Amino acid sequence: MGAGEGDVVKNKQVILKNFKNGYPKESDMLINSENTICLKIAQESKGVVLVKNLYLSCDPYMCIPMKEFNISQGLLSSYTLGSPLTGYGVAKVVDSTYPNLKKGDLVWGTTGWEEYSLIANPASLFKIEHTDVPLSYYTGVLGVPGICAYFGFYEVCNPKPGERVYVSAASGAIGQLVGQFAKLMGCYVVGSAGSEEKVHLLKNKFGFDEAFNYKEENDLAKALERYFPDGIDIYFENVGGKMLDAVLVNMRLRGRIAVCGMVSQYNLNQHEGVKNLMCLIEKRIRMEGFVVYDYYDEYYSKFLQTLLPYVKEGKITYVEDIAQGLESAPAALVGLFSGRNVGKQVVMVARD
Amino acid sequence: MGAGEGDVVKNKQVILKNFKNGYPKESDMLINSENTICLKIAQESKGVVLVKNLYLSCDPYMCIPMKEFNISQGLLSSYTLGSPLTGYGVAKVVDSTYPNLKKGDLVWGTTGWEEYSLIANPASLFKIEHTDVPLSYYTGVLGVPGICAYFGFYEVCNPKPGERVYVSAASGAIGQLVGQFAKLMGCYVVGSAGSEEKVHLLKNKFGFDEAFNYKEENDLAKALERYFPDGIDIYFENVGGKMLDAVLVNMRLRGRIAVCGMVSQYNLNQHEGVKNLMCLIEKRIRMEGFVVYDYYDEYYSKFLQTLLPYVKEGKITYVEDIAQGLESAPAALVGLFSGRNVGKQVVMVARD
Repeated sequence: MGAGEGDVVKNKQVILKNFKNGYPKESDMLINSENTICLKIAQESKGVVLVKNLYLSCDPYMCIPMKEFNISQGLLSSYTLGSPLTGYGVAKVVDSTYPNLKKGDLVWGTTGWEEYSLIANPASLFKIEHTDVPLSYYTGVLGVPGICAYFGFYEVCNPKPGERVYVSAASGAIGQLVGQFAKLMGCYVVGSAGSEEKVHLLKNKFGFDEAFNYKEENDLAKALERYFPDGIDIYFENVGGKMLDAVLVNMRLRGRIAVCGMVSQYNLNQHEGVKNLMCLIEKRIRMEGFVVYDYYDEYYSKFLQTLLPYVKEGKITYVEDIAQGLESAPAALVGLFSGRNVGKQVVMVARD
Repeated sequence: MGAGEGDVVKNKQVILKNFKNGYPKESDMLINSENTICLKIAQESKGVVLVKNLYLSCDPYMCIPMKEFNISQGLLSSYTLGSPLTGYGVAKVVDSTYPNLKKGDLVWGTTGWEEYSLIANPASLFKIEHTDVPLSYYTGVLGVPGICAYFGFYEVCNPKPGERVYVSAASGAIGQLVGQFAKLMGCYVVGSAGSEEKVHLLKNKFGFDEAFNYKEENDLAKALERYFPDGIDIYFENVGGKMLDAVLVNMRLRGRIAVCGMVSQYNLNQHEGVKNLMCLIEKRIRMEGFVVYDYYDEYYSKFLQTLLPYVKEGKITYVEDIAQGLESAPAALVGLFSGRNVGKQVVMVARD
């Protein structure tokens, strides 16, 4: 049975208008309201799914494929000019020629910044089986940021009770979880963020022992010394640059640095130099980068088995900043880089 | 029995004249020929040994305690102005009030840059039990450089046969050993050094697969790409700075960087910035510093048990650059920083 004319609907999109040096601006994107899509997959297209996007995730890494000069060395493909951005999202299957997914199934994974997307590699999607939590959580605590926080903290950092943990960008999608995991383990946890509101959230909502506004500190190394008079055992690195330099001089013997991201550097073509790497020797520090893909195999078996009960029992709290409507997506994305979001930035495209 | 006047002898010393910014010069040290020492330990001095220094080790780290501004954050104490330098050496016990060592014993460990030294903490000395190898080897292949190379390579780098290994400062005290360990393990090994003579040595004496003169390369990253078209699995870091940046972009997925030293940085008060740390994320690189002290416990049980047979059977070759006489020590030390030495730089103070 082919697609009839009645199956063709408008498909609003967020289009990349031009590549960018520095952080993205709203004017680098445009909303295309004229695009249409057929809600029936053509008969000859085998093994694909058509989804309706419900929630789109705004992530700092997204400025990298938006750049003229792609610094990611092949990890992230550049976006295509004139096409919709892509990113993680939660979606509902509208039509499918892929045997493992059928109409009505909920999924999360890489999708387009548009109302409907045709997913050519549906094997990359995760089927959502638990819907007794907010669906948007699959862009956050139960999605990529959660996986990063969980494996980055428990596996890369190798934490022990009582250790001293520092989290930068601590109220963000990942940081808020790392801090809570560290408290569950019995660590002393300090977070930094860029506003008083976020500092308040860290201490009062997420249970960090201490928190500070890095924008108010003239000397980051001194600030860290104040909160860690005996040094830092574990640093969960989201920021890079000067923050990393300040952390290095405050690390303890045999400290560990899990390198999850370096958002302070994403806008730069020539990165800031990190000067205190000699500390790695003196303090026998292990610094290790990791990427979320490496842990996808353990998503259902290990991650979700632990996180779902934590979320349902309220052991883990998650704060989201949900922008309404696809039109709000460019501003929501851009806001990440000035720290406008409080908690995980999500765009709701449709409720169901 | 007290010391008689006849026990007092001249004790030539290499004295630190002034602290230094940048690499040390010969004029920062002076030879004091007027000092005397009594070769009998005073009766009331318990638990000390008096040694006659035979071989002194010249090591790059020694410029750090010679600096006005000590960058080592407590790992290395600054030298004392007007006193002899200290460093690793091989010595013979002349007198002892320390039960575990007696007159005539040979030891290696931290001693003074002088003919005779009173060692206040003899528990820090290693007793030399095998004298069927050159005694000077206990400043090199059987001493600190050997321990650094052995544990740094086998434990920190976690190598596997067939992996691609890069060693900087490869003809130096540590590098020449790392290269040979890597070949013994069945790795592909490339070293860099600062002269054609050293490059020749790497390929023809130590069995590196390839070697290059880094001073002849305008673009270190390109040079590494030439020797490692498929990237580097293991980097044994002796240099830091620009070399590290060039390595980072050439690392392979899940590569390991053992940070042993960063000699290019020791002369600087403000270190060069390393700009390519984002590679740690994309390539899931582990970078780890280590310090020789941590492995002292395994010196006899593990290290010497492996290395002594290697050395005696000729499986491991060691090249030393031996300067004759304490007077030659300042020039020998200074020469390290311009790469004048070929192989491990040692000063022979006395043959026995």
